[in-house]
Amino acid sequence: MSYLVSLLSDFGQTDTYVGQMKAALLRVAPGALLVDLTHAVPPQDVRAGAFLLWSAVESFPPGSLHLAVVDPGVGSTRREVAARARRGDLFVGPDNGLMVPAIEQLGGLAAAVELNEPAYWGPRQSRTFHGRDVFAPAAGHLAAGVPLERLGSPLQHLEAPFSFPPPTEEEGRPMGEVLHVDTYGNLITNIPGALLPARFQVRLGAAVIKNAPHAHYQTVAPGEPLALVGSTGLLEVSVRDGSAAEVLGVRRGERVHVVPEM
Amino acid sequence: MSYLVSLLSDFGQTDTYVGQMKAALLRVAPGALLVDLTHAVPPQDVRAGAFLLWSAVESFPPGSLHLAVVDPGVGSTRREVAARARRGDLFVGPDNGLMVPAIEQLGGLAAAVELNEPAYWGPRQSRTFHGRDVFAPAAGHLAAGVPLERLGSPLQHLEAPFSFPPPTEEEGRPMGEVLHVDTYGNLITNIPGALLPARFQVRLGAAVIKNAPHAHYQTVAPGEPLALVGSTGLLEVSVRDGSAAEVLGVRRGERVHVVPEM
Amino acid sequence: MSYLVSLLSDFGQTDTYVGQMKAALLRVAPGALLVDLTHAVPPQDVRAGAFLLWSAVESFPPGSLHLAVVDPGVGSTRREVAARARRGDLFVGPDNGLMVPAIEQLGGLAAAVELNEPAYWGPRQSRTFHGRDVFAPAAGHLAAGVPLERLGSPLQHLEAPFSFPPPTEEEGRPMGEVLHVDTYGNLITNIPGALLPARFQVRLGAAVIKNAPHAHYQTVAPGEPLALVGSTGLLEVSVRDGSAAEVLGVRRGERVHVVPEM
Repeated sequence: MSYLVSLLSDFGQTDTYVGQMKAALLRVAPGALLVDLTHAVPPQDVRAGAFLLWSAVESFPPGSLHLAVVDPGVGSTRREVAARARRGDLFVGPDNGLMVPAIEQLGGLAAAVELNEPAYWGPRQSRTFHGRDVFAPAAGHLAAGVPLERLGSPLQHLEAPFSFPPPTEEEGRPMGEVLHVDTYGNLITNIPGALLPARFQVRLGAAVIKNAPHAHYQTVAPGEPLALVGSTGLLEVSVRDGSAAEVLGVRRGERVHVVPEM
Repeated sequence: MSYLVSLLSDFGQTDTYVGQMKAALLRVAPGALLVDLTHAVPPQDVRAGAFLLWSAVESFPPGSLHLAVVDPGVGSTRREVAARARRGDLFVGPDNGLMVPAIEQLGGLAAAVELNEPAYWGPRQSRTFHGRDVFAPAAGHLAAGVPLERLGSPLQHLEAPFSFPPPTEEEGRPMGEVLHVDTYGNLITNIPGALLPARFQVRLGAAVIKNAPHAHYQTVAPGEPLALVGSTGLLEVSVRDGSAAEVLGVRRGERVHVVPEM
Repeated sequence: MSYLVSLLSDFGQTDTYVGQMKAALLRVAPGALLVDLTHAVPPQDVRAGAFLLWSAVESFPPGSLHLAVVDPGVGSTRREVAARARRGDLFVGPDNGLMVPAIEQLGGLAAAVELNEPAYWGPRQSRTFHGRDVFAPAAGHLAAGVPLERLGSPLQHLEAPFSFPPPTEEEGRPMGEVLHVDTYGNLITNIPGALLPARFQVRLGAAVIKNAPHAHYQTVAPGEPLALVGSTGLLEVSVRDGSAAEVLGVRRGERVHVVPEM
């Protein structure tokens, strides 16, 4: 069976960087099945990339491969790594924290190597494009069946320079923050569905959203806010037929309070 | 042979929603050949999505599969459906009119089912992302050879809450409107080439475009408007090396008059 | 083995044009492996498209196929062509200079034909969308193994209405210009790494960048400019964690001076 390979980067789709990276992978593993997650991570925003990668990997079949490149430290001392999560998925990318939440989501780290075996690098080596020259060839060799351990020296752990803030509690009420604003303007919080009471209000910024959770978007009038557990399993705040970020004037990092309703 | 599967949505390419939907499809049908139509349908604009899907399906080989998700009613009472057009193409998406013009374009409806057989849903079920949790798995099972009829209860017809306005006539002169403004700023009308006289003028907004149809863009000077039958078989108004929408100040819905020239 | 086919156009990803072009190719060659280079070439900007195609082809394995469509002259007298570079790669697109720098990069022209054999065109013929109706079917037939020579009449050379300005020298100092501003705001010049002294300054606009080449982005402080040989083998000017184009106020065409440092 073909290897399913997800790709995530901050390369954008205006230049040819994504295409060059795919070519470098496919020349090693022509049977790989490539699926773009996104290439619109804000430039050099490792943390935003980590959220997006985390949000997506569970939808892939166990044992998929994830090539992720948001790499402001390219060419510096940050390591280039490949790793296996306990679920069996493989990851390739820079050792800057980008892949850590996704690996945790899939059961934690099972094995990791530094990509210091030049036999598995590409034919060209630049200072600025390790996505093409190191990561994609390594991913290609993994997709072609080379064992992870061959690609370089073993590592005991990956660097984890940041983590997503966990939700907290105040007098039994869940509190958290907005982790991500999606393309519709939905506000995705760090509060998992399991922490929510049966009926509740959400307070964020100047807004109070009552009668949550809402069953779906059409339970409120157009332009009105609502709150429900979204596709990531986290509490989300939306506006029907509109952007919650715009309507409520809320951005990443905004505090979110959940208040039980009787 | 692999199944050719087109994908259309309003998910954008900034988040990972498209990638998650593809993963959900490929985990069921790893041999499917995915082709993105667009994921930039304006959010929740079912009508714009319906035009774009309609514009594209004829270019696919008969018997292709089309997965289309513009779904403001996700989680509400709108049904989830799969359908077969008389040409043999399969469609999967919400029963909100999105797929109806495309199905009509391919000969009309041959069969349809409501996707109410959970055996063909995905492993996770969210309230907000049926693209991943219902539609993509259903499309995957179809691409893997499961007969349409197995996916749920038969339906006699699909909902058709809107239709594209047909062209009309006034004193023998075709009249219509702008159905779509494309990425170049071309104005695509609802007037098919077959209704046009041999030589004609086009009047829309304050503009009068003479000597139509033009053979190609370079028959006028840069910045000047022209009119011809475009790649959809419909009358289009363009500006050479520019945007007709901007230069003429015209948007979707603008009235278009065709006047025969001697 | 499957044919690797790169695609480049100015079609954008808002409409369904790219999807229709891919469908037209895959209906002829269902086993082709498609890789998007970019579809965000500025509309009708053949020169920008030529740079982007040039920048990418070397990353593909020899013998790949490149389908490139930036075609303001569609339907006029400009020819439709297919060509083979000496490296073995095949090219399909309009004869307007778009493919010439890429072909030169791969060793120069080995053979070319005009696509005037209708047996290898698609089933529909429009005046405005030869990407779908002529180029993609031709590329599909090539990917399916039809020899280049069958697709039409031989041509001795391709049209080359423009070329990228070569770097020059003034008193032994390399001079050049900015050829391309990429998605990060990096300024890619026409000065190849081989022309650069061991240590140098770069002067462009009002900026003087000392201590070049920099080993990587993190050798300067955030917001500061640097210069190095980028992934294309050309001198690039960047700003750490920022956009050099914005910070330095520089655009395509800006003059660049290299001054040796002691």
